[in-house]
Amino acid sequence: MTTTAQPHLNGVDTAALFATVAAVKEHNEIAKFQFRATNTSLSGTHSRSTISGFYGAMQEMAHVKETVLDSDHPEVLTGTDNGPAPVEYLLHALAACLTAGIVNVAAARGVELTKVSSTLTGDIDLLGVLGLSGGSVRNGYEHIKAEFHVEGDADQETLRGIVEQSRRRSAVYDALTNPTPVSIEVTTG
Amino acid sequence: MTTTAQPHLNGVDTAALFATVAAVKEHNEIAKFQFRATNTSLSGTHSRSTISGFYGAMQEMAHVKETVLDSDHPEVLTGTDNGPAPVEYLLHALAACLTAGIVNVAAARGVELTKVSSTLTGDIDLLGVLGLSGGSVRNGYEHIKAEFHVEGDADQETLRGIVEQSRRRSAVYDALTNPTPVSIEVTTG
Repeated sequence: MTTTAQPHLNGVDTAALFATVAAVKEHNEIAKFQFRATNTSLSGTHSRSTISGFYGAMQEMAHVKETVLDSDHPEVLTGTDNGPAPVEYLLHALAACLTAGIVNVAAARGVELTKVSSTLTGDIDLLGVLGLSGGSVRNGYEHIKAEFHVEGDADQETLRGIVEQSRRRSAVYDALTNPTPVSIEVTTG
Repeated sequence: MTTTAQPHLNGVDTAALFATVAAVKEHNEIAKFQFRATNTSLSGTHSRSTISGFYGAMQEMAHVKETVLDSDHPEVLTGTDNGPAPVEYLLHALAACLTAGIVNVAAARGVELTKVSSTLTGDIDLLGVLGLSGGSVRNGYEHIKAEFHVEGDADQETLRGIVEQSRRRSAVYDALTNPTPVSIEVTTG
């Protein structure tokens, strides 16, 4: 990143962005975050998550407002379709992460964007999840494709470079494309 | 899975569930699904996704209703906090996937559940995302922990076995713990 003369660009407070990077450089501890979600089963495959508090910048914090998210399986998969399927939330998470990165990187590079939109598709063969493949088909997506449309006051190569830098620094892209350790603990009764 | 005498359990239409598994076994093509999300940048790190149509069971389908999801970075990360961060949606997706699996597996095994709740935490060191680690810190979560609380009319071992089977068959657990191929295409102007 190089600093830019524009304190605000693409809705990004670049001055605050650079100040944050500088502060974290000075005190690495500020960068340790923990995000959280709590979930409760409602009926069948319908469940509800709440997202509110998190830890970061060496303190307990909370979002401006709590978010409630419903998830379910669609009816064709014998669910009750009270919300997107869990795997659809993955596509949203990836789109939102890459997009936020694109906007931040563009602002840092002094590029004004007029449009960032994307369509994400994830191909999945449910033979895996249903246990009908004899182990030859994975449970998750076989492939995710993200198609981005980006417009702004820069040439094609510069815009593509911004998307590529966002990919390189994306938390969700990394979480999906590389193994993320997950531990599961169970209490009963 | 073994069939149960109870056509509905835990809100799961077990008869439909077994019929679906049998139909897919007969015609593997039914199991090929494609899920989708479209996203648009609003301002700064705030973006909005729409989830509606998908392909599955050899036809174009749509959810009962369209879902709109906002994502943003929190203010401490120089965002405008108009929704959960992208990485928080990952925790929700994992919780919802494992929970739906637990409920389905329990129904298939004839176990009535009275409670399934979970708290997921994801530890992330933002030195990676900020490019300040010299490559020693990953961008995504270093570790995700899922704590499940499960109650039902079965002993502890049976309940734990249900959670374990859900983990084994979870699409989101697989997508996170194993590498998922992601391709990114960019159009400009």
